[in-house]
Amino acid sequence: MFDIIAFDADDTLWHNETLFTEAQEKFKQLLLDYHPEAWIEQKLYEIEMRNLAHFGYGVKGFTLSMIETAIELTEGRIPGSDIQEIIDYARTMLAAPVQVLDGVKETIQALSRQYTLMLITKGDLFDQETKIARSGLGGYFKHIEVVSVKTEATYRHIFDKYEVTPQQFLMVGNSLKSDVLPVMACGAQAVYVSYPSTWAHEQVSERELWEQGHHELDDIRQLPELVRQLESGQAPSTG
Amino acid sequence: MFDIIAFDADDTLWHNETLFTEAQEKFKQLLLDYHPEAWIEQKLYEIEMRNLAHFGYGVKGFTLSMIETAIELTEGRIPGSDIQEIIDYARTMLAAPVQVLDGVKETIQALSRQYTLMLITKGDLFDQETKIARSGLGGYFKHIEVVSVKTEATYRHIFDKYEVTPQQFLMVGNSLKSDVLPVMACGAQAVYVSYPSTWAHEQVSERELWEQGHHELDDIRQLPELVRQLESGQAPSTG
Repeated sequence: MFDIIAFDADDTLWHNETLFTEAQEKFKQLLLDYHPEAWIEQKLYEIEMRNLAHFGYGVKGFTLSMIETAIELTEGRIPGSDIQEIIDYARTMLAAPVQVLDGVKETIQALSRQYTLMLITKGDLFDQETKIARSGLGGYFKHIEVVSVKTEATYRHIFDKYEVTPQQFLMVGNSLKSDVLPVMACGAQAVYVSYPSTWAHEQVSERELWEQGHHELDDIRQLPELVRQLESGQAPSTG
Repeated sequence: MFDIIAFDADDTLWHNETLFTEAQEKFKQLLLDYHPEAWIEQKLYEIEMRNLAHFGYGVKGFTLSMIETAIELTEGRIPGSDIQEIIDYARTMLAAPVQVLDGVKETIQALSRQYTLMLITKGDLFDQETKIARSGLGGYFKHIEVVSVKTEATYRHIFDKYEVTPQQFLMVGNSLKSDVLPVMACGAQAVYVSYPSTWAHEQVSERELWEQGHHELDDIRQLPELVRQLESGQAPSTG
């Protein structure tokens, strides 16, 4: 029934948000002399959102936003050495070992024997490519798509490119906003695998989720069984 | 004879290096009080090369390198407002109108009637996608590949992905290093279309070019005629 099972990468196959959270923690420490923590966090989020249209997703855009926030919150008084430290966070993030999530490797391995697997990931092309290479999982995926956004149009474009119908496609990911809702809007099925901390920007309201009828797993190891149920028409949706 | 004619984008279809040159000029002005121009230029290039392995190509990585250079050359004394100015260069570059080069549109239009056209471009995914959209040329290209590097392996991967042999593939671009040499090393043909100012990093020595037997054009409008000659076996190479 499914021709392609596609996976999100960051926070679905390996830890990613933790790197951003760690960098953000260090960033807040750097500015605590100037402002309270909550205010620094709010300003950074505002500036990130404002910059998204210019810089897109990824470590480099995030770093430029941290630098801008630091300048704005200190009215330009931040010393050069602190800005250098922020750039060093970026280098640390980009060079950090890729920590594959529990159960991922065995699940991917098992599914790859029977299905064509695809990776659909958002962010810096260069960063994503090195992470795929370093994860040791690249070989299980026949197709890899690094995209700048994940909207309904993104998925429709992928269906066209790989000549697959929405009915033949299953998407698995930790972001309801990027991996689940737009896929279901195309008429394809999606599995939500929760990740403990999800970036505020990727969160959707309860209301949006109401009766969407997606599939939800706490552990990616449950995926092969769910796929079997979906193919035999036995899986009730979670919505 | 050719199944796919592929084009580089930056400085082949539209101006790009000029944007970097302009930003670099402004950057040098900013630091002239601290150091002579040639030294600033050399330091920036050094830091860019050092950062390439971390940040990859593109405006955001270039901007982070400018900021690092500014901090290093001023021993951290650069004011926050000047760093903000450097970030503003990035925003200007990313929002700049896409200036399609002379003769490009008519050439692409003419070739698209007879051939499958592909775009193979290097850099920030997000930046490249918005440039393709803003150029008005996106519709002529059946396939678009944004890649992080252009090596022999990159081109071999593309041949596999699109099930094309090197003999059926022609690459057109302004960088001998990225668009010509690796393509010819795969056994495919390549056309070099010169662009007045090419980034130092993309330049190759005369020696490397010696007897490579590539095809060279001063004007992209000569491309349809060259393609005809190549297909009829009449085109002598330029090496």
